[in-house]
Parts: sequence; structure tokens; C-alpha cells
Amino acid sequence: MWGDVRGARVGCASWSGEREDVAVLWAPGPAAAVTTRSTAAAASCRWTRARAPGRCSAVVVNSGNANAATGARGERDNAATAAAVAEGIGCPVDEVWVCSTGVIGQPLDMARLLPAVRRACALDADRDRLARAIMTTDTRPKQADWLGEVQVAGVAKGSGMIHPDMATMLGFAVTDARVTAVDLQALLEEVTEVSFNAITVDGDCSTNDTFIVQSTGTGPLARQGTAAWDELRRGLTSVATSLARAIAADGEGAEHLIEVAVEGLADDARARRAARAVAGSSLVKAAVYGRDANWGRVVAALGQAGVPDLDQLDLDFAGVPVLRGGAPVAVDEAAATAAMAAPEVRILARLPGAGRGVAWGCDLTEGYVKINADYRS
Amino acid sequence: MWGDVRGARVGCASWSGEREDVAVLWAPGPAAAVTTRSTAAAASCRWTRARAPGRCSAVVVNSGNANAATGARGERDNAATAAAVAEGIGCPVDEVWVCSTGVIGQPLDMARLLPAVRRACALDADRDRLARAIMTTDTRPKQADWLGEVQVAGVAKGSGMIHPDMATMLGFAVTDARVTAVDLQALLEEVTEVSFNAITVDGDCSTNDTFIVQSTGTGPLARQGTAAWDELRRGLTSVATSLARAIAADGEGAEHLIEVAVEGLADDARARRAARAVAGSSLVKAAVYGRDANWGRVVAALGQAGVPDLDQLDLDFAGVPVLRGGAPVAVDEAAATAAMAAPEVRILARLPGAGRGVAWGCDLTEGYVKINADYRS
Repeated sequence: MWGDVRGARVGCASWSGEREDVAVLWAPGPAAAVTTRSTAAAASCRWTRARAPGRCSAVVVNSGNANAATGARGERDNAATAAAVAEGIGCPVDEVWVCSTGVIGQPLDMARLLPAVRRACALDADRDRLARAIMTTDTRPKQADWLGEVQVAGVAKGSGMIHPDMATMLGFAVTDARVTAVDLQALLEEVTEVSFNAITVDGDCSTNDTFIVQSTGTGPLARQGTAAWDELRRGLTSVATSLARAIAADGEGAEHLIEVAVEGLADDARARRAARAVAGSSLVKAAVYGRDANWGRVVAALGQAGVPDLDQLDLDFAGVPVLRGGAPVAVDEAAATAAMAAPEVRILARLPGAGRGVAWGCDLTEGYVKINADYRS
Repeated sequence: MWGDVRGARVGCASWSGEREDVAVLWAPGPAAAVTTRSTAAAASCRWTRARAPGRCSAVVVNSGNANAATGARGERDNAATAAAVAEGIGCPVDEVWVCSTGVIGQPLDMARLLPAVRRACALDADRDRLARAIMTTDTRPKQADWLGEVQVAGVAKGSGMIHPDMATMLGFAVTDARVTAVDLQALLEEVTEVSFNAITVDGDCSTNDTFIVQSTGTGPLARQGTAAWDELRRGLTSVATSLARAIAADGEGAEHLIEVAVEGLADDARARRAARAVAGSSLVKAAVYGRDANWGRVVAALGQAGVPDLDQLDLDFAGVPVLRGGAPVAVDEAAATAAMAAPEVRILARLPGAGRGVAWGCDLTEGYVKINADYRS
């Protein structure tokens, strides 16, 4: 089963021999995808975005090798992977979309990958196994559901750091809503902006980031203006936001989830960008790790992002007021330090303007450095 | 003495009571300054840039308190600091420029600072003491000289990480060249682009970054088109580049200097921007720390920066060819790992185009996280 969505199934297999690390997500119907904006996009991302939005029968994912920066050979290997799934489940090769995550710049070991892909086409696994099969440095699987008239089931992997790599974010959702691929694509792009794109700094993306939504069409008809459409939007937003927060909280080495809310600025997009700049600041992240209410670093991050009117800034750090009208207020340092012991630290910046934006990040820890210094070895 | 430049003197004093941490740089004459582009610029930066280029008698620096995000009180404290120097050395207050570095968001302790500033006006120190008095998390003082027909003496502080804060960069140079303030400003901006601005990612700046050049006019006349002008340009470029590299090598917790050279792209500015993106990538930095030739992260950083034609990329990592024409070549991993033991790791990316750019960074270590998690405590 692929969540509780009728007409959706999942298969998993192992190509490393160590754990399940290949998955096939079967849900024939209209589908949509967003992929990395990197000019070094992996072969899988280029393949998938050339086919989205459109009809998709299955998505194939490998975790372990990004198949990025692998030249013409990488293109051929990607196409061969799609062809193996097409043959295994019986569909046109263009209805197989591809995702990958792992080390960059190493050719795929097709002699191991293809047999595993064929085994995964048995589609006899479940979502728990899927959620684990796509993990890399994740410490826990990530799932979310919307259970209503319209059903949405999702999984994701990623370790939401500022310059993702092995921290590639992959998100998958399936819905039973009857929806066109074009409508689904528009909705997916809107939802991505306030969920997965809110957990990294603006424009920051790996070679492999991908979010795919498949629809089986076994549920209610969802067209713009219908109640089912509104519910699909709410459901997909809820699932994607929940998965994005889970990614941020599970950042490599992370001990805290950081939520940054900006109330103000000219519009929501600017407010989100400002929130992301704070959530992505190494110094803010390191301060949260150290449980140090060094809120000056938040101001520095906002200034660096070019945010105007900082002489009117109201700032709360971990629920403690620290700045009012651009001037420091007496801070109860003990209360602030205590508040920072919570697993979630909230930073709220208020400025003139009606914009609203939220972003999520995690603290920067010695564990992050360890993971990323030793990753390949 | 302030280097070997005639007509320039230095004074130092302590306001913390722990070490010398206030300096006055006396060199009456035309001067130029560049300061942070942050919209949260400290009071000192706003004061200095309102007066540059122009005549400057002395620069006053405190290390310990950034006087940023301190509201109207911060403005008053900054003006009072300048006034104390003006009184101490006997010059108009507008001829005193101000720099500061340290914690953000805490009011200056003027009862301690002003007496120290007055003591520093004795101008009886030397450049060695100056270079130490401006240090914060720096592990070593940074000085550079150009000794020719034109003399240039420089000092700097900073710990060149990707999101400077306590890592604020301050640079000071003095020359005996007779030059107008306007010419000096143009030269300073040109030189800054290939030196101090090449050690952080584009647009990344602290609330307090400042680079000031003072001229005493006791040496040769330097006007554009003269040999003395050309030598001043060479001298200032040499001094600023040397200081910038020293800052990168002394990055907080750093164990390696990373030099990134990009040969290609449409122009030098684009090549420099691409080089900076690589030098600023947390994952590249962590890989260098781990002595892991994980060059795929360089490709990811270039892709993230929107660099075109990556399918034609030639890449050398620590002197070892890893990519030719966008395709991986067999890498001698042992040789690469051995090459990464050197204190300086060079990354060279060749692409179509005539641009040339170099940037410097340092590795990301557990030491960096420790320093920045605990900084205030």
C-alpha cells in the first residue's frame, strides 16, 4: 500500500545488499513534479521534468547514488533504469519518472541496480518500507497524511541543511483526487513554495531535489472552484508542510528545529525570503545549538539579506522579547537560555508591512561537521 | 609607528582591562572607506561612510562591541567616541572615522570606553600592538607591507567564515602617496573587489565590515597615469590580497586555506562569483576538513550558483584531475587524500569563456561550531 490511497502501490528492494534502497511508487494517472533549479541537475531531474506535468505510471527512486555529474553515461543509465521499470510493470517508458540521491560524480553500478529495480516492480511493499528505502543520512522516516473526502499520503527524505547534497530533499505524495496534470502542477508549485522551499535559503538547492505528486483518480473530481479542489489544496499543503518541518527537524546533526516567522515587509514572498535568510544563517544556527540567545545574529542575517526598516524591528527570540522598535530591551538571559532547551526554537520578527512568511531550519552542530567531513568514507 | 609610513602613528589602550582592545590610527590626509552593504550596518559604519571619501585625521577602533542594533543610543555613543578622539588629538570631529567589532545588540559601556580612547590618543604604540588590539577570534595578527617608491602598510582582523559576525572583517592601510580622496576611493573599491570581497560569498557581509585607507601625502604624487599611481595600485592590491588570504587561512576553527580559481565564463565578475560560491559552500568546506576529495560537492555548488555549461567542466581538486569535459576521470584517491593534507587546498574549474576569478575560503570544522556556539559565554 502507498498510504491509504486506492490504486497506489509500492515496491522496495536492495541494490546495496545492506538495506532496501530502491523503491517503485506505482500510481497510474496524471502527475506533477518540481525539481532542482541547479544548473548541475542530475540526469534523473532532467528526465523527470521533461515529462512533467503528464501521465505517470510509476516513479523509481534509488538512494545511494545521485547520478549527477556523470556525463553522457549518466543519461544512458537513467534511461535504462526507467526502461527496466517500464518493462517490469508494463507501461510506456515515458510514464516512468526517476529520482536519485547520494554521492555525486560516480557512475551507477547498473549490474546491481537493474536487478533490484526489477525486484521492486513486484509492488509488494508498504509505505513504511518506502519511507525507509529513500533515507540517506536521515535518522528517522518521514510520513504524513490527509484523510478526508480527498486523501493525500506523503513521504519524504532529506536532512535540510543549508547546502543540501546528500541532504537532497525528495518528497512524494499521492492522492486519490481526480485532477488534471496541469492543475496538479500549478498546485504543486504553489504548495512547494510554502513548504519544501521554506526550509532552505532562497535558490539553494542540490543537484537532485525533487517533489512529485501522483494522482490515481479513484476519488472525487477536483477542479478549481469545487470543494474537493479546496480540500486537495489544504491536504497537499498540510502533508508537504508537515514533511518539510520533519526534514528541518532531522537536519544532519540537528538538535533543534528553528522556526522563523516574519510579520511585515511588502509582501509574503519578501517575508518568506527574510525568514529563510535567518533560518539559513550559520551563526544563528550555531547560537541555537549553543543555547545562546545571541539575537544580534538574527539582526545581522536580516541586514545581510537587505531587509529594510530594521530601525523599527521588534524581535522575539525563543519567545523572549529582545528588541522593540530597533532598540534592545532588558533580556532575562536565564529565561531565554531555558527557553532554548526546547526541541523547537521560534524566532519572530515584526516589521512594518503586511507580508507574512515562515521558514524552518535546524541548528548547526559539531555532528553536522562530522557527518559531512566523513560522508564518503 | 604605523608601518614604515612617515606621518602615521598609532595608539592603543585597553577598555576591557584584559588586553589592548582600542586603537587610534593617526594619519592626517585624504582617506577612503568601504563598509558593509548590510541594512543592519552598525552606527560606526554609517558614520564613516557618510564622511568617505574625504579628509580624515584618525580612525578609532574598538574590538569587543559591534555597537550594532543598539538604536538611537548607539548613534549617540558612536558620536561621543569620535568626539573624544577629536579632543584627544586636536582635530574636527568629522575627521575622526570609527570602526567597531564584537557582540551585536549590546549598548557600549561608555564609562570604560571613553577613558581608554583618550589614553590611545597618546599615539605611542606600534603596528604590532595595533594588529593585536583589533583581534577578536583571530588566532594570529595580520600585517602586510609594500615597500617601494610608494609605501603601503596594512593590518586586518577577521575570521573569514561564510556568515561573518564576530568574524567581522576590518582592514586598515596607510600610504605615503600624495593622492586625492576621490582617486583613493575609486582605487579602494577596485582593490576590495579582488581581495576582501573575494573571501566571502557574494553579498555576504557582517554589520561592521570596513576597509579604510589613509594617505599622509609625505611621499610621491600619485595621479592616474603616473608611475606612482600604478605602483600605489600594485601595492594596495598586494597588501589587501595578502591580508584577505590571511583572514581566510585564519577562519574560525580553520585547518586549511581553500583557494578556488575559475577560468572561464563570460567575464571576471561572473568567474569570481562562481569561485566564491564554491569557497562558501558548507559541504565543500566540510569535505576539505575531512580530507575527502568529494569533488561532486564542487559541481553542486557551481550548479546551485547557476553556472552554465557544466557539461563541459574540467575540474582539478587539490591538484588532481577529477572531471574532464563534464565526465568523471579515474581518480587516484590516495594521491588526492595525500594532497589534501597540505595547509592550502586549491580547486581549479575550467569552463568555456575568457573570465578569470579567484576566491578564498577555509574548511568548516567542529572547531568553528564550538567557537560560534559558545561565543558570548
